[in-house]
Amino acid sequence: MNARDRSEAPAAPKRRPGGRSSRVRAAAIAATLAELAEGGYAALSLERIARRAGVNPTSLYRRWGNRERLVLEAMLAQVAQHVSVPDTGSLRDDLLELARTAAANSARPEVAAMARAVAAQAPHDAELAAANQAFWDERLTLDGAIVERAIERGEIDVATEPTQVIEAVLGPIHLRLLLTGRPIDDTFLERTVDTVINGVQQPPSTGRRQ
Amino acid sequence: MNARDRSEAPAAPKRRPGGRSSRVRAAAIAATLAELAEGGYAALSLERIARRAGVNPTSLYRRWGNRERLVLEAMLAQVAQHVSVPDTGSLRDDLLELARTAAANSARPEVAAMARAVAAQAPHDAELAAANQAFWDERLTLDGAIVERAIERGEIDVATEPTQVIEAVLGPIHLRLLLTGRPIDDTFLERTVDTVINGVQQPPSTGRRQ
Repeated sequence: MNARDRSEAPAAPKRRPGGRSSRVRAAAIAATLAELAEGGYAALSLERIARRAGVNPTSLYRRWGNRERLVLEAMLAQVAQHVSVPDTGSLRDDLLELARTAAANSARPEVAAMARAVAAQAPHDAELAAANQAFWDERLTLDGAIVERAIERGEIDVATEPTQVIEAVLGPIHLRLLLTGRPIDDTFLERTVDTVINGVQQPPSTGRRQ
Repeated sequence: MNARDRSEAPAAPKRRPGGRSSRVRAAAIAATLAELAEGGYAALSLERIARRAGVNPTSLYRRWGNRERLVLEAMLAQVAQHVSVPDTGSLRDDLLELARTAAANSARPEVAAMARAVAAQAPHDAELAAANQAFWDERLTLDGAIVERAIERGEIDVATEPTQVIEAVLGPIHLRLLLTGRPIDDTFLERTVDTVINGVQQPPSTGRRQ
């Protein structure tokens, strides 16, 4: 809280949706993404974001406290916008679409920078770590619907743990993105998905595989 | 290069192994690990490392240029010291040992901080990115011996790509470590390994599985 901030009415009661508060949020998120894409995480600051967004830095400090929380909010907003859970009727096609979307999203510089920023800061900020973990738990559970439908169709064993399948697909992709720097091409994505599917498929002896 | 640094002889010819140069390196790496474990990456600086190591900061600047390169050198040194490729005679036991070692190593705060530091900085430093990529290519190739031996024993198909199996094991572990923050327990490691093994195993119809 800082008395220098005169740009917002003091003790505003409830925030209207679509009102000033949500305009500030949208502008701050857009500016965060633009700054990340341009200068990366190292150069990011609430001051730069505020300047680009045309808002008072104090508004950002009061609402988010630090750049990491704003980055997390931008990440949540981005993902809400871009992630939909595939439902093609085939486990392989669903997982391939999931893998391709994850690879394409993460190749965008601002998304990669967000992931790196949260990964770097989470161990030093318990609240950020909890928010990030809740976000991933929700995302993995949502994507798990792909696996639940495959179980219902009899493609894979009922004992298969849905989020574990999603993690097995997303893990090698993010290992390349964040750590090894190896290139991510479609052959790699297909091979990753096929290994996972083969790994969780009903053994042929049950006669359920065609 | 900085003329203030009088602690090393100018234009020293060849460095003796075990001489001053390797003592500085060992002290710098130990201090880097201690600083990372204590304060994380955000607080790390060559000045703090030099103070802890009892060397002149200029020595570190001249040799490594920035903290990221020193972190990378520390990472390489750590891994050379701690990673050996398992060879138990069984693919499952080898991969489980690999997974457990990776999880245990990465749980050490200084190792986690190193991985996060390199992940955060690599996109902004082509030389660091290349060194990191070369390190991982070598590590994945070395670990790939696990898969090559399983192929020789007839446990898995000859067409199996060794590094892809290693990435399939390490990927989900690092996804939890770096992104999702989910807990890594032995049940998770076993399930990850078993899915991968099942995914690359010879289909029973070939009669090569026992």
